[in-house]
Amino acid sequence: MILLKGAEVSSKLKAEVTAVVSAMEGHIPTAAIVRVGERPDDLSYERNAMKKIASFGMEARSFVFPEHISEEEFEREFRAINENPEIDGILLFRPLPSQIDSRLPERMIDPRKDLDGISPINSAKIFAGEKDGFAPCTAEAVMEILKAYEIDPAGKRVVVIGRSMVVGRPLSMLLLNANATVTICHTRTKDLRAVCREADILVAAAGKVGMVTAEDVLPGTVVIDVGINVDENGKLCGDVKWDGIEDVASAATPVPGGVGSVTTAVLAKHLCMAAARR
Amino acid sequence: MILLKGAEVSSKLKAEVTAVVSAMEGHIPTAAIVRVGERPDDLSYERNAMKKIASFGMEARSFVFPEHISEEEFEREFRAINENPEIDGILLFRPLPSQIDSRLPERMIDPRKDLDGISPINSAKIFAGEKDGFAPCTAEAVMEILKAYEIDPAGKRVVVIGRSMVVGRPLSMLLLNANATVTICHTRTKDLRAVCREADILVAAAGKVGMVTAEDVLPGTVVIDVGINVDENGKLCGDVKWDGIEDVASAATPVPGGVGSVTTAVLAKHLCMAAARR
Repeated sequence: MILLKGAEVSSKLKAEVTAVVSAMEGHIPTAAIVRVGERPDDLSYERNAMKKIASFGMEARSFVFPEHISEEEFEREFRAINENPEIDGILLFRPLPSQIDSRLPERMIDPRKDLDGISPINSAKIFAGEKDGFAPCTAEAVMEILKAYEIDPAGKRVVVIGRSMVVGRPLSMLLLNANATVTICHTRTKDLRAVCREADILVAAAGKVGMVTAEDVLPGTVVIDVGINVDENGKLCGDVKWDGIEDVASAATPVPGGVGSVTTAVLAKHLCMAAARR
Repeated sequence: MILLKGAEVSSKLKAEVTAVVSAMEGHIPTAAIVRVGERPDDLSYERNAMKKIASFGMEARSFVFPEHISEEEFEREFRAINENPEIDGILLFRPLPSQIDSRLPERMIDPRKDLDGISPINSAKIFAGEKDGFAPCTAEAVMEILKAYEIDPAGKRVVVIGRSMVVGRPLSMLLLNANATVTICHTRTKDLRAVCREADILVAAAGKVGMVTAEDVLPGTVVIDVGINVDENGKLCGDVKWDGIEDVASAATPVPGGVGSVTTAVLAKHLCMAAARR
């Protein structure tokens, strides 16, 4: 079984991005990373994103607002970041605290600065198969892994478990645009195992520890684990139960070190693209 | 086999819509039907749409522009219609002639007046599973047929052949939002027959005469034919070759008299909704 290592995919993305950045002759693409409150997950992702962007030769500025900021004040602050000509791209951590309508930044964000594809303008582009939109970074990370390992989804049966707007739905459309035959599964799917066993490429993006096991996988399947969960021992783990997977799958992404590790590299790639397009 | 007749679905929609319209106390929902040029298909659909809207107790005004109208002039005219407070909803025939960028009206149209779901704001809502957007009428016509005949897609395997933004993609999302397990097929799908035979509900929306035959259908399948084609004898026909379908399918939509006949009723329903929301 081939281990689909995120680090190798990130290295390829780094080479692509740094080549483009160095051709920009002095302009350093700059991201705004916007956080409300101090959620540990956000802090950890923020550190990784800042580090990744810097290691790709670009700049990231952190904008932090207190948990109890009013919607009105957040709107004013977010508008200033959105309109700041020095900022090429924006990553906003979500969910936002309940006093702020999540639709507000989705509608406000300049689609050209929308690094994580939260704007309806970008999601409509992904839905329609247009090439000039930003997809959510995690969904695109899966596509980058397939590309880096030369696994072409065209003509393949791909089963995606999960229908979120962060992974399942946009990833299904990216795969469809790459000419895969896509089946979207979810909590209401009957006989999930039978559906999984139709897959040439099986994507687990349900956010449930160990929901895919070796019995769901036929010999030769490529298994992509998008889950990032913490098990009962406090250990990071995916949606795929690893026992026995190596004996059936032809390739699989580990957790950690798989999809999650590519997400920040895609974020950096999007920043570079956003700056290049301006 | 149950014949899923469009006329019965339209009657139900008419009853729903006229009840809402009569409660509006004097305001008559008014549609603008916007056509550029004189394509026979458009003329025929326009006649049907005007008739349907009138028969549902509402009003439709036709706006016709010459085939060679400049983009600039079209933009000015379309803006006036879009901003006209007497107009509750707009149907624009497409494709537009090549001198007009098709993105222009998609971006301009007020999403609240967008009866056929061409705005990216509406397609993003359909993609995300939000309830307050307008889907393309043909896609929603399929959902109305399933609803009228009490065929609940929840937990069912649904196979959609076709990935257009008018039917395949939005319909897949409407079905997903109704908790179906959805597989999207297209020209690059391998062994289409095997995939079709997984379906509890099979939707043919490829625009290809006779591409689905009785051999693609397992006993008990519900067959929905979205195709509107003209065969070599000049006769209207769908994507489904009818011979033998009656012996296997549990239910099927005819062509003509199936999905196509419900589309204008959905258009009228959208007009009523658009007026009610204002």
